[in-house]
Amino acid sequence: MNQTLELMLSHRSIRKFTDQLVNERELDIIIRAAQAAATSSFLQAYSIIDVKNPEIRAKLRTFCGDQEYVEKSPIFLVFCGDTHRIKNVCDSSYESGWTETFIIATVDAAIAGQNAMLAAESLGLGGVYIGGIRNHAQEVSDLLKLPEEVYPVFGMCLGYPAQDPEVKERLPKEIVYHVDHYTELDEATLEAYDTHISDYYIKRTKGKIKDTWSEAVSKKFKQEKREHMLKFLQDRGFIKK
Amino acid sequence: MNQTLELMLSHRSIRKFTDQLVNERELDIIIRAAQAAATSSFLQAYSIIDVKNPEIRAKLRTFCGDQEYVEKSPIFLVFCGDTHRIKNVCDSSYESGWTETFIIATVDAAIAGQNAMLAAESLGLGGVYIGGIRNHAQEVSDLLKLPEEVYPVFGMCLGYPAQDPEVKERLPKEIVYHVDHYTELDEATLEAYDTHISDYYIKRTKGKIKDTWSEAVSKKFKQEKREHMLKFLQDRGFIKK
Repeated sequence: MNQTLELMLSHRSIRKFTDQLVNERELDIIIRAAQAAATSSFLQAYSIIDVKNPEIRAKLRTFCGDQEYVEKSPIFLVFCGDTHRIKNVCDSSYESGWTETFIIATVDAAIAGQNAMLAAESLGLGGVYIGGIRNHAQEVSDLLKLPEEVYPVFGMCLGYPAQDPEVKERLPKEIVYHVDHYTELDEATLEAYDTHISDYYIKRTKGKIKDTWSEAVSKKFKQEKREHMLKFLQDRGFIKK
Repeated sequence: MNQTLELMLSHRSIRKFTDQLVNERELDIIIRAAQAAATSSFLQAYSIIDVKNPEIRAKLRTFCGDQEYVEKSPIFLVFCGDTHRIKNVCDSSYESGWTETFIIATVDAAIAGQNAMLAAESLGLGGVYIGGIRNHAQEVSDLLKLPEEVYPVFGMCLGYPAQDPEVKERLPKEIVYHVDHYTELDEATLEAYDTHISDYYIKRTKGKIKDTWSEAVSKKFKQEKREHMLKFLQDRGFIKK
């Protein structure tokens, strides 16, 4: 087992941070690592907004469901899908609005994001992805002055951990991993996992939460579905055809 | 500089592989690393299809633009966005077709994919993402028997490298990285990068290709735009609202 594998296998979200600042050299290497990730056809269809201004942070916090760490974490990065830059440098061959281009930008941003997360973890930092950045995607875009064809995919809090939560066990491999063809999940395997996750929540919350995985997933869909996303993205110039 | 950072900063796509097989233990840890990545609200909205059957591989090769390594690489994984599983385990709260859910599945698959790539690289393997899996997305879905609400985001070839290509320099940091607000790119910075990439191509192809980055990006958009993607995804149950 090497350092990289150990880091990946010990990943958990960190939402509480010490006061220790992340210095510019560390931040620089995190951004370089993000940029070094694979990118579809070398398009590099993403941008990273590093939000340092406390007033912008405070507003982002309210837009992201009032999560304190969005305001207070030492670093807060917003990973954006970005085809605006490509459109600008491209000759007339570029056509806006293809769904394919949206996928490229989203995947590029996500891959870069995961490198940033892992780079940070390799330096002793921890962090958490903030999908809540899409709760108020239009307001966030206005606040960060994102031009057309740029959209916030997720935010990321980074800093030195002030907590040490347990690693949350993932679905059994046989449910996620298939050979040659997709296979429907095995009910008994799911049931065992559901029990396992329920035990985890009971232990972590001292009995306050006892959801199985299936129940937790169901609750998620009763909450925010971000029903505005399609219109928002189309207004931005994405997914028009 | 630690091992993880070094790995990330030395990433380049590998498209030629030795005959050395990837053993089951290595593959197992690659899948475990993929699964250990962050996942939106613990949904784990992705699946990985490991295509071992040579006949399926041969067909995939033709669907992916006849890239030999899709057929011949020791490992070929297809990372799929998957909300089918969630729909199955969810109570009646689940509603199909939200664009937000599509984004969650796509980002989950991409983040897991990047962990798999890096896990493989940490074991001395190399690989390449195959966006070409979307060239014939419907045919690929039929071939892999993907149910509704599962779609192939990208493929990934993995194996022991039989080539040692140069690392391709990314856009200057100041073009991708912004503080507090999005900033439009600086023409002079882009021009210097364009020249740099042209020099890289000239060197790598012995003068046959001399595109700048802007030219290479423009050419990309004259090729496959995968115009079928929106209809394909809607037929699968995604991006309906």
